[in-house]
Amino acid sequence: MPYSFEPILQIGELCAQHGLAHAVLSPGSRNAPLTIAFVRHPRLHTYTVSDERSAAFIGLGLAQATRQAVILACTSGSAGLNYAPAVAEAYFQQVPLLVFTADRPPEWVDQLDGQTIRQRGLFGPHVKAAYELPTDYAHPDARWQIGRIISEAINLARAYPPGPVHINAPFREPFYPPPGYEIGSAPLPKLIRETTGKTSLAASNVALLAKVIAQSAKILLVGGQSRIDPAICQSLAALPVPLVADTIANLPPCIGKVKHSDLTLARPEVREQLGQPDLLITFGLSVLSKALKTYLRQQPPRVHWHLQAAGPVADTFQSLTDVIRVAPGDFLPLVSEWLAPSDLLAPARAAWLDQWQGLDRQLAPSLQTYLAQLGTGDGPLSELEVVVALLAHLAPATQLHLANSMPVRYVNALDAINPGVEVFANRGTSGIDGSVSTAVGHALADPDKLHVLLTGDLAFFYDRNGLWHNHLPANLRILVLNNHGGGIFRLIDGPKSLAESAEYFVTTQSLTAEASAKDMGLRYLRPQDRAELHAQLAHLLTPGGPAMLLEVETDHTVNERAWNGLKRI
Amino acid sequence: MPYSFEPILQIGELCAQHGLAHAVLSPGSRNAPLTIAFVRHPRLHTYTVSDERSAAFIGLGLAQATRQAVILACTSGSAGLNYAPAVAEAYFQQVPLLVFTADRPPEWVDQLDGQTIRQRGLFGPHVKAAYELPTDYAHPDARWQIGRIISEAINLARAYPPGPVHINAPFREPFYPPPGYEIGSAPLPKLIRETTGKTSLAASNVALLAKVIAQSAKILLVGGQSRIDPAICQSLAALPVPLVADTIANLPPCIGKVKHSDLTLARPEVREQLGQPDLLITFGLSVLSKALKTYLRQQPPRVHWHLQAAGPVADTFQSLTDVIRVAPGDFLPLVSEWLAPSDLLAPARAAWLDQWQGLDRQLAPSLQTYLAQLGTGDGPLSELEVVVALLAHLAPATQLHLANSMPVRYVNALDAINPGVEVFANRGTSGIDGSVSTAVGHALADPDKLHVLLTGDLAFFYDRNGLWHNHLPANLRILVLNNHGGGIFRLIDGPKSLAESAEYFVTTQSLTAEASAKDMGLRYLRPQDRAELHAQLAHLLTPGGPAMLLEVETDHTVNERAWNGLKRI
Repeated sequence: MPYSFEPILQIGELCAQHGLAHAVLSPGSRNAPLTIAFVRHPRLHTYTVSDERSAAFIGLGLAQATRQAVILACTSGSAGLNYAPAVAEAYFQQVPLLVFTADRPPEWVDQLDGQTIRQRGLFGPHVKAAYELPTDYAHPDARWQIGRIISEAINLARAYPPGPVHINAPFREPFYPPPGYEIGSAPLPKLIRETTGKTSLAASNVALLAKVIAQSAKILLVGGQSRIDPAICQSLAALPVPLVADTIANLPPCIGKVKHSDLTLARPEVREQLGQPDLLITFGLSVLSKALKTYLRQQPPRVHWHLQAAGPVADTFQSLTDVIRVAPGDFLPLVSEWLAPSDLLAPARAAWLDQWQGLDRQLAPSLQTYLAQLGTGDGPLSELEVVVALLAHLAPATQLHLANSMPVRYVNALDAINPGVEVFANRGTSGIDGSVSTAVGHALADPDKLHVLLTGDLAFFYDRNGLWHNHLPANLRILVLNNHGGGIFRLIDGPKSLAESAEYFVTTQSLTAEASAKDMGLRYLRPQDRAELHAQLAHLLTPGGPAMLLEVETDHTVNERAWNGLKRI
Repeated sequence: MPYSFEPILQIGELCAQHGLAHAVLSPGSRNAPLTIAFVRHPRLHTYTVSDERSAAFIGLGLAQATRQAVILACTSGSAGLNYAPAVAEAYFQQVPLLVFTADRPPEWVDQLDGQTIRQRGLFGPHVKAAYELPTDYAHPDARWQIGRIISEAINLARAYPPGPVHINAPFREPFYPPPGYEIGSAPLPKLIRETTGKTSLAASNVALLAKVIAQSAKILLVGGQSRIDPAICQSLAALPVPLVADTIANLPPCIGKVKHSDLTLARPEVREQLGQPDLLITFGLSVLSKALKTYLRQQPPRVHWHLQAAGPVADTFQSLTDVIRVAPGDFLPLVSEWLAPSDLLAPARAAWLDQWQGLDRQLAPSLQTYLAQLGTGDGPLSELEVVVALLAHLAPATQLHLANSMPVRYVNALDAINPGVEVFANRGTSGIDGSVSTAVGHALADPDKLHVLLTGDLAFFYDRNGLWHNHLPANLRILVLNNHGGGIFRLIDGPKSLAESAEYFVTTQSLTAEASAKDMGLRYLRPQDRAELHAQLAHLLTPGGPAMLLEVETDHTVNERAWNGLKRI
């Protein structure tokens, strides 16, 4: 018996031939042809996740970890709307996703049929493109169109800067193949492959840029959020220029790397003393440190180059003057070349570098003392102490996932990431809506590494459906800092003095993660004291064994004291 | 000290003067001015709910229960995207919502700042309108604009057919008022009120329509989803015309009401015997019964009138010929008038009515026998038996909330709603994403009634964050039918024979609701046998006492047998 959806089933093979490997599916009836296309394909790994919000964030994590576009597919109606938070995060974090939403055929939209909304362009401006598959496949052009759309969508999702694309797929009943149906032998539509080129600068431009460098004494490098990029790391290694970057920039220690800039730049007198850079060179995505933003907005560089091969560029510091369309890994070696040590400006440059390095020299002893005393005595644990202990325990090659909002801030302020640890956070939209799921996706894609999620209680409970499926990865470890509310609202200045604070900003919540962890099959740890915390952290971070969750309950006044103390050292 | 957001704080008073009473807020920093505006207003009830997806569905429930627009307000970024499923449901179910999203000022969009997405028009075509507040309030016209937008948005949200409107609110830092700040005495912007008129038909149109009635022997009334509407109920009471309606149409028993049409119309021979109606008169929103849709698409009426005072009209049965722009409660009495008993067609009409009534006369004895035997013997409980028992226990004035997908189908097939019980289901988009939250919103708005949610396990766990806040209503009762997966995929024909069925359609899941119920503070009941089920149902449905959750675990083969048996009686 024939099955009208054979052209849809071929999408499985088209995706596989394009090199895609993972598909996150959510249950439904209308998406049955897509589900079958992906599940029956021997080279596609498929996962089924009921809550589409979590499913999409798991897809995001898989895509980050594999550096490859990941397939999502859900049924018609509001299912696709639940994808929207992860799709927006993928858009701003530049993660490739191939997002399929099954739909009713267009003539049935707005006819009060079940699970029918207006799905065309569902994700608005948060996808690189939105496609719609044909509804009928009888004409040979329809098969050509399906093949073309799939190729075009995958190529676009991957093209720099990568991002999500949406394919709306209207399906007519009946959805299910007859029993025993095997995919037919109809020829596959042709693939359209895309070979990526690399941009480089014309000699005349190189000369102009070299001249700017030659005239700049105070050069500052700032790296935004990025994966570990070996080309960048290598070119920075010996570059004698101060480099400021958040931990989410994943830049290794190097000559110019300024440590603890988030703490030092928070001081008005430091920002004043540093003064305006002559030339700011930035690369990467978003910057977390409010102190750094404040510094650069108050002391704008005379010239600001942003290195980015293609795509829209943000003027984060309100100082951007030049967009340079090459990859940072290709451009930074040129800067090294241009900085001749014999240059007249060499002493000024050395002084500028020393000024930056001096910030940390000054801070380091008191920071060390401060952090050391946190772990002594019988006083209650603070979140800061727990984070310090966690970071100290992280072995190389551990992947550290940070939820918004305080975990990412603690880790950035401490700036104590062990070498080889890669740091992830959903800073595209900075939501708390998908941290658990994103970490799960990573862990699934990358079973040989330990994936550690550091999260507050709000972000954990918000997205605990990221653990509600049958794919719990054993290499997942979760550390929940439970202060029973949105701790950030006690730590920032505005809300803490308001009468409404506890109820409407902090949003006190009484849950512990114990029941959720046990429900979902994670081993649950909760230390009673400091000694147990260290023992359990060591246990948590031992490879092998099952997925585990360690929860530390803290008191917000203790957290406040520790955090404010850190900012005042 | 002044506070620049005074014009925003005035929105609280503007909303209150427009008669709004409930606001669901989610924690965040950028929305602080809105939070303060609503929380500090003495006549607004505010709730804080962390998961914006649940918050919005709770707002939907509050709006349904109060028949009044409800305020939602969240912070910037992906928070608003989490509102989208409830906003779409509100749009298609015609429930008024005033949806505020705080935003960065426009100049900071796309500049890689945290919690920033492209929020203008965030809900696409699923709101009645999208507004944007001004960013600066110094010019007096800005205050006039804010007042005008709030009035216009509220008036539009309420105007028939009601629905959600979006107000994007860009705010500049600092967000928080100085300590001790009290709202100033600046004059409030004027309100713009809207007085609703009522459409009526011209005499010439009345004459034309009366003539169609006079020529129609086989008139059929079909009611779609609706609240209890006293005007409609009254006009139907004595109308000797067959009336087919789902339980979600909330129509009381009356002369013409055909019982169990979902079971009888499922039979091809019944549809054949009934044949084509001469005139179909429809009113209300969506129709659930697939059997009814099949009947009317196979036996299209010669003429199809849809009664709806304003707004877009769906052609659900592909037979629509006339849209009549008056409220059903105003039009149906005319039909009564026109049906003169002395008419030549009176005998044919009586025969047509009798033919419909005969369907249930024929079915009733075997249905009764079938349902009675379900509850006997020592066999395991089926979901069908549990639903029968629940419906039998429901006292008048109970509000029954049905999750998608099987609960609403079970209840509709059984057609055994006790008088005075009102039935709700999210059939605007028919998603499983917000049933728990919607029921919570209802219960909060309406503390004197018992609110009972009947849900499957997938819909329950999907939306359990609807219980994660500090507003758990004691009058909430939840009955979870736990078959450990999407039971519907075992009960519909296509997927059950597929190899992928258990993993990719049913989506087997192992949780029980016990830990979630206890975490959230609900008393948890789980009957061990039939006798305990009845005792616990009685306990569950006793007014007073705390919020409770009763969970019944069933085996899918038992459910399948019971459901298929019902369809074969």
